[in-house]
Amino acid sequence: MAAEIAHKLAALAIAPTATLTHAETTSPATWKDTLIASGSAPASFELIKTLIYKPKTAKTATTIPVVVIAREETETNSGAIGKALNLKELRLASDDLLKEFFALDKNSLSPLSLTESTFSKVVTVVDPSIASSSAVFAIHANSSSETIFLSGKDIESYLKKLETPETKLQELGTAVTATAAPAAAPAAAPKEDAKIEGAVQIAIGVKKEVDFPTWYTNVLLKAEMIDYYTVSGCYILKPWSYGIWEEIQSWFNSEIKELGVQNSYFPMFVSASVLEREKDHIEGFSPEVAWVTRAGTTDLEEAIAIRPTSETVMYPYYAKWIRSHRDLPLKLNQWNSVVRWEFKNPQPFLRTREFLWQEGHTAHLTKNEADVEVRQILELYRRVYEDLLAVPVIPGVKSEKEKFAGGLYTTTIEGFIPTSGRGIQAATSHCLGQNFSRPEMFNIFVEDPNDHSKSYVWQNSWGLSTRAIGVMVMVHGDNQGLVLPPRVATVQVVVVPCGVTSKLTDEQRAAISDTCEDLAKRLKKVGVRARADLREGYTPGYKFNDWEQKGVPLRLEIGPIDLKKQSTLAVRRDNGAKAPIALASLETDVPALLETIQSDMYARAKATYDSRIVAVTDWKHFVPALDSKNIVVIPWCEEEACEDDIKERSGRASEPQDERAPSAGAKSLCIPFDQARWAPIEPGKTKCTACGKDAKQWTLFGRSY
Amino acid sequence: MAAEIAHKLAALAIAPTATLTHAETTSPATWKDTLIASGSAPASFELIKTLIYKPKTAKTATTIPVVVIAREETETNSGAIGKALNLKELRLASDDLLKEFFALDKNSLSPLSLTESTFSKVVTVVDPSIASSSAVFAIHANSSSETIFLSGKDIESYLKKLETPETKLQELGTAVTATAAPAAAPAAAPKEDAKIEGAVQIAIGVKKEVDFPTWYTNVLLKAEMIDYYTVSGCYILKPWSYGIWEEIQSWFNSEIKELGVQNSYFPMFVSASVLEREKDHIEGFSPEVAWVTRAGTTDLEEAIAIRPTSETVMYPYYAKWIRSHRDLPLKLNQWNSVVRWEFKNPQPFLRTREFLWQEGHTAHLTKNEADVEVRQILELYRRVYEDLLAVPVIPGVKSEKEKFAGGLYTTTIEGFIPTSGRGIQAATSHCLGQNFSRPEMFNIFVEDPNDHSKSYVWQNSWGLSTRAIGVMVMVHGDNQGLVLPPRVATVQVVVVPCGVTSKLTDEQRAAISDTCEDLAKRLKKVGVRARADLREGYTPGYKFNDWEQKGVPLRLEIGPIDLKKQSTLAVRRDNGAKAPIALASLETDVPALLETIQSDMYARAKATYDSRIVAVTDWKHFVPALDSKNIVVIPWCEEEACEDDIKERSGRASEPQDERAPSAGAKSLCIPFDQARWAPIEPGKTKCTACGKDAKQWTLFGRSY
Repeated sequence: MAAEIAHKLAALAIAPTATLTHAETTSPATWKDTLIASGSAPASFELIKTLIYKPKTAKTATTIPVVVIAREETETNSGAIGKALNLKELRLASDDLLKEFFALDKNSLSPLSLTESTFSKVVTVVDPSIASSSAVFAIHANSSSETIFLSGKDIESYLKKLETPETKLQELGTAVTATAAPAAAPAAAPKEDAKIEGAVQIAIGVKKEVDFPTWYTNVLLKAEMIDYYTVSGCYILKPWSYGIWEEIQSWFNSEIKELGVQNSYFPMFVSASVLEREKDHIEGFSPEVAWVTRAGTTDLEEAIAIRPTSETVMYPYYAKWIRSHRDLPLKLNQWNSVVRWEFKNPQPFLRTREFLWQEGHTAHLTKNEADVEVRQILELYRRVYEDLLAVPVIPGVKSEKEKFAGGLYTTTIEGFIPTSGRGIQAATSHCLGQNFSRPEMFNIFVEDPNDHSKSYVWQNSWGLSTRAIGVMVMVHGDNQGLVLPPRVATVQVVVVPCGVTSKLTDEQRAAISDTCEDLAKRLKKVGVRARADLREGYTPGYKFNDWEQKGVPLRLEIGPIDLKKQSTLAVRRDNGAKAPIALASLETDVPALLETIQSDMYARAKATYDSRIVAVTDWKHFVPALDSKNIVVIPWCEEEACEDDIKERSGRASEPQDERAPSAGAKSLCIPFDQARWAPIEPGKTKCTACGKDAKQWTLFGRSY
Repeated sequence: MAAEIAHKLAALAIAPTATLTHAETTSPATWKDTLIASGSAPASFELIKTLIYKPKTAKTATTIPVVVIAREETETNSGAIGKALNLKELRLASDDLLKEFFALDKNSLSPLSLTESTFSKVVTVVDPSIASSSAVFAIHANSSSETIFLSGKDIESYLKKLETPETKLQELGTAVTATAAPAAAPAAAPKEDAKIEGAVQIAIGVKKEVDFPTWYTNVLLKAEMIDYYTVSGCYILKPWSYGIWEEIQSWFNSEIKELGVQNSYFPMFVSASVLEREKDHIEGFSPEVAWVTRAGTTDLEEAIAIRPTSETVMYPYYAKWIRSHRDLPLKLNQWNSVVRWEFKNPQPFLRTREFLWQEGHTAHLTKNEADVEVRQILELYRRVYEDLLAVPVIPGVKSEKEKFAGGLYTTTIEGFIPTSGRGIQAATSHCLGQNFSRPEMFNIFVEDPNDHSKSYVWQNSWGLSTRAIGVMVMVHGDNQGLVLPPRVATVQVVVVPCGVTSKLTDEQRAAISDTCEDLAKRLKKVGVRARADLREGYTPGYKFNDWEQKGVPLRLEIGPIDLKKQSTLAVRRDNGAKAPIALASLETDVPALLETIQSDMYARAKATYDSRIVAVTDWKHFVPALDSKNIVVIPWCEEEACEDDIKERSGRASEPQDERAPSAGAKSLCIPFDQARWAPIEPGKTKCTACGKDAKQWTLFGRSY
């Protein structure tokens, strides 16, 4: 793309999804065809039109053109626009005018044609559905033969940056446009959704049930959990999400330290020869390994990998450090980031090229000890999800096909996303057996204290990543935004002053503010993370929406009447329930209410999960159950060929594929430990639902992330 | 090197310092000359000799050759060796024997010629000074024309790994060798140093005052703070050091949160175009930037850098997020690792290619606000060093030459390493001014609420790294090992059972053990990190030394007499002082004693630092003061040319250079805030010690890390 454009985008940390050079185009239709024909455009994209209108003005007056930026399919009625802007007789501008203002013809115009110098000389009207859309938009790069693809958010960022106090962007609203494109509709929420009197509507933009992927990214952006980053597949964890991670870290750290695990830090680099030691293991990771080949201007002699996981980083040292049974068990953990350069469509928290996690690596004298620990850790993971994040999970064992590359067996907790009807692997605790310790591998052994024979150690590795945060958002969030479980919320309670009208005296205003601050202070003293929102210049309604969008579990309102009654109105984020709390009993009632919110959130999610697990003993119900957004549990033979077959048969049948939910075929999720939930499997009698061979155990299958 | 050797070393995670192919050699002298002449050998290295002896045996008996591995200069007396091993008439083995056992001639032999299959058929005797040495050793790679360079530790690892219960390595001790090389001498510590009755001497190997760099790495290895890693310049932070970092994190986190700083996480990757935005800034870092150019087998279109620091990663988003004065101040921090691919000699904690730190980045409306915060943070850094690590520092401002690349001014706390007489930059808090916010850079501005003009934000960045741990080790460690200040020690108190002789009844033994456990439990209840060392099979002396080496601040001894007296003997690690503590007053006396140890450690280090700052007003005393391991403070003109000149003049003059302490010329360390320590500078009258121009302020100069 043109250097000038590249420079502008870089200044805003905007990275195009793609850039294309192609044949010159003259109309939107040929443009779109050309892009698709090139084979290099994103799988789906929309066009943006940039129209320049000239209002009728006195001959001596300066012409102020109107720039309209809209989705191609949005109808732009010049009469309605002119009326809304109070400008007469808008007409599409002549080529001369375009040349004069932008030095471009109409087929090369794009939002990027606006610059700091031209912006203040025109009126700019933008279709608001662009910014709220998850679509990728094609725009010209100052020529009709070069196209770049940008997100709506980035286009908005670019334009917003041009604003000055005197010249602001205008919205192409219902007043301005005759008919908005269907996709633009949710931007203006129906009246009945605006529950709160006086509220400024800060919509998530699209409904969770209608466009789940867009809802998800919008919630994350609007709740200030993440921001997109110039390097594709990487995201910024803003304090609002990182704080959740800190809560998880703090709880998990104290639990594993009780088990004798110690924290440490191993380097992020690993040499090729060490990385490639375990063949099965590296096969699982090598397509995604990022390689450093240069430092400064010096090419490295041997390329060095960035760890995708640390088994091969750590185990050579386990071999060195473990000399006798006295050195066992060795239990180390680290909190770090790992890199897996996925080429699939990335999604914040769920699939990212760099992500944060903890990885525990332990070595034991006996298999039994290792087995016990695998389950202890899995139980801690279950508690992170269920007790902290209020997200129900099902613990079980992975099938041979789905187990950790190079390990002996993998235990897992499996979550469920009701909106998409897909399972999601929440965290895994692996027993590696002696696969990494055997002599031809890392050769980690001790001498048996009795007979002096070599005992190769039994190893486990286990990991929990920031994916947990994404699952929590998907499970609990609603159309008002994020819903945070109290135990992990950075702010658990927000105190908002209300009813501060012009009738109040200064003393009355001060009394309300002071009470808000006082409540927050009292709550903090009893360990509640509370904050008073005393921001000036925002209405209570704006604040309500702001904190709702950010998912704060409980809002306390304080107005003149509350003060008189010595009470505060408590509003729950999870279900909107309102109830007064006497100020005198604040220190007991608020913590109790937070606990109730926490357990209610879990109970609701659990009921939903339970209701969406369908036991299937006849194959004909299998795919329909999936298509109705369930996961299924079947008596299963546990054979890999059967698993492949299930994937194939359930993928072929079904619903249209969503590119961001890549697996349309069902995978085995886990063999649940709790088999007693379903009718007993009768050996030799109960048959596998999929292939009719003898079934071994009930196994969960589902489409998954 | 030969694939076989490469494989063996890789299996042990051993990375040679260098590998050389050269002309065939036949004697140690020609070998050494050839290596030096090649120009590719390490700057200093030692040779190892591998000698094979054959004892006289009955003709029918199996020959068991003796393999002696020693430093070239160690005298190996075959008579003494034979006597020690109880073998008759050792003779150097014939070529035939060498061929038979090793398929090699004597000029190709090396420690690596031993394999699992040959090791059990020979007797192997090793010079113990190899493992304890910091030298790099040249050894053959199964041919007389190929040499690899390994550390002594790695050679030991290799040999240890060959041991079996039946066949152990033997030490070439004073009994075996007539005269050991001088460097080997400290391995056997003089009798008077063995203070503790019954102690197993675990020496640090070399004295702190004699060979400081070797002492430093030995302490770190023996105290289990770090291990060396296969990727050069990277180190493993073992729990014993990582725990100190966790203490620092926990304290610093709570302090910055009080200041309104929030934690977050930004990606480790940064694109070339963004990284290179600020020219001065990138000039300071670009020679050390590591570049990812490949993912899996796919070459990336544009190389992506690993952050050397995050200014350019974060500030494009500051531009995006900061829209109005309500968004200020923005205060973010992250705990992460950064990569600076230094080509100089690495040193654990002090100069490593990847290191852990925190980096804070804040944006403010006014310069004054930024100035205030710069000093608040510097004060926290001072407290991390002085209050937690008991390491005195001097706060001040960096000269223009030494300030942060691209910033406005840099404040610093400067530490001092008495043993080397060098200054060390401990932590820095930078005011970046508006250098990164101005329009042609990251364009970070808000509109002034009053006159709507653009105000470019004032920014700070500040960082503290794991270097702090290295400084603490250097300042407090002694010839027994590490000395940890109580506030950061993972284990503050160890309780060791003593006097458990064969005369005691089982009940008496149990009473001692139980009391030890009970003391640890009682101490933990009052917040003391205590541990009872009830390991079986180790003498009290061994345990004493073990914990002393690891630097545990306080040891409590419990024996039969202590039990009777209901008292415990408390032994301080910092000064060896012993005093009984009544068990009844444990909960008050131990915490008080730990505080005393903490403040005594600080006071001693402070007195030393103070005594080694020499005020110099006459240039002729400048270099002699440095040569006597001091730093100097001079009235200084603050001109860069003068600073360059001081470096040049003080470097030329002085002591022989140590490769691991690269700066022989003095740099300015800081202009201390506390100018009142020295006689007032009289404007126009007091002259610069170095150049004679008008002096501005007292400034610290020193050789430094």
